[in-house]
Amino acid sequence: MSLTVPEGYHPLHARSVPAYLASQSQLEGRLGGGEADWRVQEVSDGNVNQVFLVHGPAGSVCVKQSLPYVRLVGESWPLTLERIHFEHQALLEHGRHARGRVPQVLHHDARQYVLVLECLTPHIILRKGMTAGVRYPRFAEQMADYLARTLFFSSDLALSAEEKRRKVAAFSTNTAMCRIMEDMVFTEPYQVHPRNRWTSPQLDALAADVRGDMPLKLAASRLKYQYLTRTEALIHGDLHTGSIMVTPEDTRVIDQEFAFYGPMAFDVGALLANLLINYFSQEGHTTEAAPREPYQDWVLETMETLWSRFQARFLALWEEHGRGDAYPTALFTTEAERRGLTEERQRWLQRLLGESLSFAGVKMLRRIFGLAHNLDLDSIEDPHRRAACERACVELARSLLLDTGRFHTLTDVTAAARALGERAPRRRV
Amino acid sequence: MSLTVPEGYHPLHARSVPAYLASQSQLEGRLGGGEADWRVQEVSDGNVNQVFLVHGPAGSVCVKQSLPYVRLVGESWPLTLERIHFEHQALLEHGRHARGRVPQVLHHDARQYVLVLECLTPHIILRKGMTAGVRYPRFAEQMADYLARTLFFSSDLALSAEEKRRKVAAFSTNTAMCRIMEDMVFTEPYQVHPRNRWTSPQLDALAADVRGDMPLKLAASRLKYQYLTRTEALIHGDLHTGSIMVTPEDTRVIDQEFAFYGPMAFDVGALLANLLINYFSQEGHTTEAAPREPYQDWVLETMETLWSRFQARFLALWEEHGRGDAYPTALFTTEAERRGLTEERQRWLQRLLGESLSFAGVKMLRRIFGLAHNLDLDSIEDPHRRAACERACVELARSLLLDTGRFHTLTDVTAAARALGERAPRRRV
Repeated sequence: MSLTVPEGYHPLHARSVPAYLASQSQLEGRLGGGEADWRVQEVSDGNVNQVFLVHGPAGSVCVKQSLPYVRLVGESWPLTLERIHFEHQALLEHGRHARGRVPQVLHHDARQYVLVLECLTPHIILRKGMTAGVRYPRFAEQMADYLARTLFFSSDLALSAEEKRRKVAAFSTNTAMCRIMEDMVFTEPYQVHPRNRWTSPQLDALAADVRGDMPLKLAASRLKYQYLTRTEALIHGDLHTGSIMVTPEDTRVIDQEFAFYGPMAFDVGALLANLLINYFSQEGHTTEAAPREPYQDWVLETMETLWSRFQARFLALWEEHGRGDAYPTALFTTEAERRGLTEERQRWLQRLLGESLSFAGVKMLRRIFGLAHNLDLDSIEDPHRRAACERACVELARSLLLDTGRFHTLTDVTAAARALGERAPRRRV
Repeated sequence: MSLTVPEGYHPLHARSVPAYLASQSQLEGRLGGGEADWRVQEVSDGNVNQVFLVHGPAGSVCVKQSLPYVRLVGESWPLTLERIHFEHQALLEHGRHARGRVPQVLHHDARQYVLVLECLTPHIILRKGMTAGVRYPRFAEQMADYLARTLFFSSDLALSAEEKRRKVAAFSTNTAMCRIMEDMVFTEPYQVHPRNRWTSPQLDALAADVRGDMPLKLAASRLKYQYLTRTEALIHGDLHTGSIMVTPEDTRVIDQEFAFYGPMAFDVGALLANLLINYFSQEGHTTEAAPREPYQDWVLETMETLWSRFQARFLALWEEHGRGDAYPTALFTTEAERRGLTEERQRWLQRLLGESLSFAGVKMLRRIFGLAHNLDLDSIEDPHRRAACERACVELARSLLLDTGRFHTLTDVTAAARALGERAPRRRV
């Protein structure tokens, strides 16, 4: 891959954004006033693309553009521009399924690799809010609904095989983004790799342990095989708490550039992993003046509610809209058969929970030992304190990957998290 | 779907084939002489396409053309012409992986939906030979090698994720052919459907049993979900004994129009199912003068050899060429880790055997209760005798689908087949 870009492609800069928007007449009304009245704010805090918020007298928009490299790293890590088209397609599809849970698409420019999206105000990144200890009372319910609807309606449970296979074909070429996950989630944290980093020297021995843990590496490899070979649903593909924007009333999912047809458990697991990381990080943020134990309880309750609502929602959708080619209802017509099918669906969700917890395990480990870390942990300044939180994360992650028989319900997981959290030495500052 | 065809497409007829071939100058040399010297033989005995063998003074070729409908059924069952392109692509890819195991492609005409292939002489369809009780001493070894090579080299175990995902995209649009399997293998045999047929009235009660067997229908639905959502390898997609041509020395796989990226176990299972059907059918062909028991032994031994050679071959390929993105060898570098990886590969093959036996179960049932039946059984004229053979097939198929814990090795399967065969009342004519 090289940095060659298509003719006519120009990376935007804060100064060139207003002129660009002015050339798209349908956006002017939304901003109000003219080019000179628009204030541009660069907010590229994702890892990959550049993002500008543009505020006009009448309203704001969000401008997102692919660069021919990974923004966080720079030109030394080239990346295809096409990721913005996959984000666009996924936004449209997920938006149809889970109305109001993703930002509205205002404009797509295939030549400049630009998406102009609804500006989410006053939303903030969930991870920032959770690191600050803010509660989001509607988050669990809204995310459960988002997950159930996007996964169900893009799957063989809802679609004809023909429509599903066409969609698989369309997203199978998002290879550059899948490659990032294949490497950074399933491979690099388990080997010596220049991109890896961790809290050093505190976790040096643990990092070496992980790299030498054969059962763990086999478990990660089994999950990588699932990631490579399962086309269950159009998944978000990077569903951590940094890909979610919230207010106390509203939840929105952003950054769909990793979307492809993959295992449903990869999305569910990513979310659970990042909630667990936040739970363990709270120990590093707690103070005498503002103890975080009550917030930790809220995080675990949120996880439980998220899963139980998701499960109920998914089952209800399946019951009501299960007209896809998988598990054809035409085969289950008597009362006993319908009951049998309902029980099978419950077992199916149980299987999904098991796989999700395994994916949660690799997702937690990669945030401790791989390239991309989480604000929740990284904002703990004292490295000893941070390392203690990270150790607890690693311990639970290993259990999730290796003692799979231990976790039958989400409550088994929250109980294990609680036990680990309580065992860790408390430090009050 | 309708019978509209692209402009310029003309179905060939026995009389128009020589002129068509004469227009393809590269083929003339292969046939020798001129158009007037070529003898055309129609041999469309597959279910779907039309096929002509053309014999000239210097040699022969095989001409295969898609019709806009299923040949076996007629214009009432329209089918897309594009299937010949998927067959072409699969022939090229499988031919690269398993050199000499598929017919050579001599010519592909994208406008006429025609493939001209090497004429396989003196090969006959394996199912015909096996129905007549002919042994093929090299079949097990050659098919084991074909299966291992085509499945391994098209999988994530051998390919980069990028290359694999591109191939998935290319074959994901073979939806019309996949639809046939989705309906005829996993759905129709389990419901009242106008396409179904069975030995009636002898199997009427058993057919009703199958349609009312909820655990069986759930098992079939689970397998259908795998067929819809697993992209493990470029599979043949219809690998029964009618898709294989043989001489005592040589084995070739034909009719790749169902090829797509699907579960490896679908191919392995199809083959095992059709060998088991042949085994049970022998009871209907045995006579005092020519008892078939020794042949039955050969069929079961062939199955055992096929699996054990396949397993060994696949493991050896993985050991030597496992440079794909799945199970990255870079994570397993110490001696203990390499041993651990080898053990994991053995478990992986064990999982593949389990899934293959389940697919074998649905493949057997569909040949008894669905539209497409097998010569092995259909050529038993006495319906009572045929029904007795079919009952044994159904009993084993149900076990394969429901008592999965019973079958750990291929020998467990052949032993179960033998026990069922011996229990059935012998009739000598």
